[in-house]
Amino acid sequence: MDSSKLDEGTAYGKPAGTCRSELTLVTAGTPGGEYLRRYWHPVGLASDATSRPKPVRVLGEDLILYRDGRGRPGLVYPRCIHRGTSLYYGRVEDRGIRCCYHGWLFDVEGRCLEQPCEPDAGRKIRDRMRQPWYPVVEQYGLIFAYLGPAERKPALPRYDLLEDLEQGEFLEADDSSIGSGGAVIVPCNWLQHFENVMDPFHVPILHGSFSGPQFVEQMALMPEVSYATTERGAKCLQVRKLEDGNIFNRITEVVMPTLRLVASPRVTKYARAASIGWVLPIDDTSFRIYVTGRVRKAGELRESTSRYEGKRWIELTTEEHQRLPGDYEAQTGQGTITFHSEEHLASSDRGVSLVRRVLKEQIDIVKSGGDPMGVSHAADAPMVRTEAGNFIADAETAPRQ
Amino acid sequence: MDSSKLDEGTAYGKPAGTCRSELTLVTAGTPGGEYLRRYWHPVGLASDATSRPKPVRVLGEDLILYRDGRGRPGLVYPRCIHRGTSLYYGRVEDRGIRCCYHGWLFDVEGRCLEQPCEPDAGRKIRDRMRQPWYPVVEQYGLIFAYLGPAERKPALPRYDLLEDLEQGEFLEADDSSIGSGGAVIVPCNWLQHFENVMDPFHVPILHGSFSGPQFVEQMALMPEVSYATTERGAKCLQVRKLEDGNIFNRITEVVMPTLRLVASPRVTKYARAASIGWVLPIDDTSFRIYVTGRVRKAGELRESTSRYEGKRWIELTTEEHQRLPGDYEAQTGQGTITFHSEEHLASSDRGVSLVRRVLKEQIDIVKSGGDPMGVSHAADAPMVRTEAGNFIADAETAPRQ
Amino acid sequence: MDSSKLDEGTAYGKPAGTCRSELTLVTAGTPGGEYLRRYWHPVGLASDATSRPKPVRVLGEDLILYRDGRGRPGLVYPRCIHRGTSLYYGRVEDRGIRCCYHGWLFDVEGRCLEQPCEPDAGRKIRDRMRQPWYPVVEQYGLIFAYLGPAERKPALPRYDLLEDLEQGEFLEADDSSIGSGGAVIVPCNWLQHFENVMDPFHVPILHGSFSGPQFVEQMALMPEVSYATTERGAKCLQVRKLEDGNIFNRITEVVMPTLRLVASPRVTKYARAASIGWVLPIDDTSFRIYVTGRVRKAGELRESTSRYEGKRWIELTTEEHQRLPGDYEAQTGQGTITFHSEEHLASSDRGVSLVRRVLKEQIDIVKSGGDPMGVSHAADAPMVRTEAGNFIADAETAPRQ
Repeated sequence: MDSSKLDEGTAYGKPAGTCRSELTLVTAGTPGGEYLRRYWHPVGLASDATSRPKPVRVLGEDLILYRDGRGRPGLVYPRCIHRGTSLYYGRVEDRGIRCCYHGWLFDVEGRCLEQPCEPDAGRKIRDRMRQPWYPVVEQYGLIFAYLGPAERKPALPRYDLLEDLEQGEFLEADDSSIGSGGAVIVPCNWLQHFENVMDPFHVPILHGSFSGPQFVEQMALMPEVSYATTERGAKCLQVRKLEDGNIFNRITEVVMPTLRLVASPRVTKYARAASIGWVLPIDDTSFRIYVTGRVRKAGELRESTSRYEGKRWIELTTEEHQRLPGDYEAQTGQGTITFHSEEHLASSDRGVSLVRRVLKEQIDIVKSGGDPMGVSHAADAPMVRTEAGNFIADAETAPRQ
Repeated sequence: MDSSKLDEGTAYGKPAGTCRSELTLVTAGTPGGEYLRRYWHPVGLASDATSRPKPVRVLGEDLILYRDGRGRPGLVYPRCIHRGTSLYYGRVEDRGIRCCYHGWLFDVEGRCLEQPCEPDAGRKIRDRMRQPWYPVVEQYGLIFAYLGPAERKPALPRYDLLEDLEQGEFLEADDSSIGSGGAVIVPCNWLQHFENVMDPFHVPILHGSFSGPQFVEQMALMPEVSYATTERGAKCLQVRKLEDGNIFNRITEVVMPTLRLVASPRVTKYARAASIGWVLPIDDTSFRIYVTGRVRKAGELRESTSRYEGKRWIELTTEEHQRLPGDYEAQTGQGTITFHSEEHLASSDRGVSLVRRVLKEQIDIVKSGGDPMGVSHAADAPMVRTEAGNFIADAETAPRQ
Repeated sequence: MDSSKLDEGTAYGKPAGTCRSELTLVTAGTPGGEYLRRYWHPVGLASDATSRPKPVRVLGEDLILYRDGRGRPGLVYPRCIHRGTSLYYGRVEDRGIRCCYHGWLFDVEGRCLEQPCEPDAGRKIRDRMRQPWYPVVEQYGLIFAYLGPAERKPALPRYDLLEDLEQGEFLEADDSSIGSGGAVIVPCNWLQHFENVMDPFHVPILHGSFSGPQFVEQMALMPEVSYATTERGAKCLQVRKLEDGNIFNRITEVVMPTLRLVASPRVTKYARAASIGWVLPIDDTSFRIYVTGRVRKAGELRESTSRYEGKRWIELTTEEHQRLPGDYEAQTGQGTITFHSEEHLASSDRGVSLVRRVLKEQIDIVKSGGDPMGVSHAADAPMVRTEAGNFIADAETAPRQ
């Protein structure tokens, strides 16, 4: 070997990759987990809470969701406080859920109402015992839960775009992870998806020259992009000059902690976004997306799911997944939690950097005892106003940021 | 939010659960594991020991069970002491088992009889080598093994109820985990099952109002219950006053270390228990049950297995397992090893507490160098007398404890 | 119990087994891993490098193999240095491989050629970035890679037996792990297979009296065996006196680091070995074998695979695998990494001991900064001469070592 021509840049000696755990971990006690626990998160469709106990996994916690005979949804720690048997095997009754093993009955707030094997049904002792539970509220066709400290529980926010319905519109909720580009449960950290919302540059590549054009002609153009923080998160303006001289302005938004506001990339009309997606971190290495949107006919939300050479994602062969990657492949292809230490962020990644910076700031605020962005304790807090959408304008009237 | 009405008792901040590892762990070197290693345990049916080496797992140890050509059962460490190849691939011969790789031959006590690739078949060196083995004895249709220190090996006990056979009765052994309420191998710690034997209160709930009545009318009544230790373990007396004025007395027993003496809950007749179940801890997180009982026709033992809406357990759908839980669901529903730190034991749990106390005492005795309850080193030790059964009496002649 | 007759040699109290990790571990940073990284290893057939990116695992490293449009094979770290998406989803182009997410393009040596979302395709920044890669060379129908430090990269050796082809012979490469005795990927440490090459005594047992005779009559005779180190590894001479008075001399060789030179045990003719097997450690607990050999018709190599009672290995039932074990069963039967602490090596294991000693010496040489056996940095290094084969001789002319 000519030692003057050594191989450069080989993988030998490459340090092991590391991730920014302060941003990515979601379990209780971690900085990110505590931050996420200052907000309400969807844990199911309203129709998931029934008389059949349903296991759900949220922020790394296994819980049981049900609805008592009086119509109240309940979300409880699965292990019965008596002897630990799972309330998955419990029976839902009028007043709550009853453990199968010795019949202790708990209401939706964890109060123990009956201990049938104890003298007088446990009247003397049962009030001192409480099944761990979490508060839940129904809204927009979803069940939202708050897994944080009681004294920090915020009001459940309302969003303009799901409130100001037009004639003939109604709200539809969906739990199939619309927007994930693939499976309902996506086996990677939630942030890999969330930061993608502020990454408009992958659209002409991944969804364009690689596996597309998956969307419409307008979207395949490389846009001019600018970013800004908002009082609720961050936004990204993508400006494309169309052939007819008009300006196509597209705004996507992330709203803290996990909301994606992305107007249809199919641009069937120029209008504000018609739906909100809540990215739910199931645990450190998987997430799913709940969506509620304005529709004019039932099932409309799910119709917008991508096709690949005419096939649905679930129908693709291994070879086709490899040849026609989408968001699912790109994001799970980063590993269960990506190695931030190995990244080389460039100018087109400013949106990703911005999301991480906002996230880091909010985590630090929670660490220092404050309330993070978007949290309000006032029951009469104003509706959250959003900007996301696809808009058309002539050059003079283009929106500014 | 009205801060004067904070949510109370939510799951936020709940400490991680812990288990009493000194009671539950079964591997060598743990307190519970050393205690269990002072007794004989069943490792298979007598018919499991054949010329085909059979892998068995007992107290966390993987072993090979076989029967040599002379009819002697053998139980050996699987890795051949020569080069480590598993004796699972060995060939059983007249004098023992031969490793497939280089042909070393061992007898049922681990002596090396041949090393065919060595000069003179290894005559000069083979006597210094020994394949690790355990002593086994056949009794009651089962093969019992002793995995403890040689100097503490007890006599193998005999039990009255399997000895005093009536005309027409014979003994039948079964390895299908009768009494587990489900699968042959149950994926949770053995103690979750064992302590259940002393928990008569779950019967009217789990087997009654939930998934039953699985048994007979008498059993569905809530009993008066008393408990006592015995010289071999502990017992539980359940007294039910029947409509005809008679008293139904049911006694269940645990005999240390793992024996369950439970008369048929179907109460086809009033009589002493007809079978013994040995709960075998496979490892820390799974167990199985071997049963030997007196029967009048072959297959009778297994006929007593529970039905759920006419179906056998194996035939239930996921939804039916959830809706019709039995012992299997209740006990595996406590997790692989339950979190004792989260329990709230009440007066109806005195039997469970008693089992744990007796167990703890025996473990402590072993720790301090003594022989635990029920261990006898005398070959002519008296037969163990038991009390379990279903008995009928008028009020005056009811048994007392 | 008669305490004067205590059980001896039981498994109770046996210490936990341990392995010689310095010999067996293959990942970067371990002594064995660094030693192995001073040699070229096969990572696929030449035909495995195509326009479809192929994941390969070598010495515990996950890599992507492909061939660019100009015919150059490339082997790269899978995570794109931009944002970490796997190049498994990349598109192979004329000049290299392009990541699906944002389109960065890398050549086979990891140079970044394009960043389409950056100004001017990243011209200002891309030269400072390099996708980790490894050098590869095609030879003998295989793709060899060098995963070690650049300044130590040796010349790729050539071997006489694959160079001096006779009239009508050509080279054939195979990736089905011929010689493993079983599956393509064998789930145990590579050394368990490699040392077996220097263990001629298992042949009359495992392949003879147990599951055979799998080979020919001559092989079933117990040989006289001698061993020696060579300048490239170690060899083993097995001398068998045939009935006709002739001497059958069989030489098997290991060539460092992982080459097995084993003439056909079917002895269709007396001749030097016709193939080389490279044992590729996939990771600490699995390996596969690439073979290149001289053949006269396509597919000839794989025809030599063993049959068991007429069946191919893959067709055997569980019971037949147990009753008819071969190398696969014997070696995986030692566990994923055998416990060297429990071995009892004897005189017939001198070949195994020799392989380990040579291996240990080479590892120590690498540790002290030297080049291990067989490494040459001269492009014009002489061809490696080998000795393996089946040879016939009358008693006077038998080869000597």
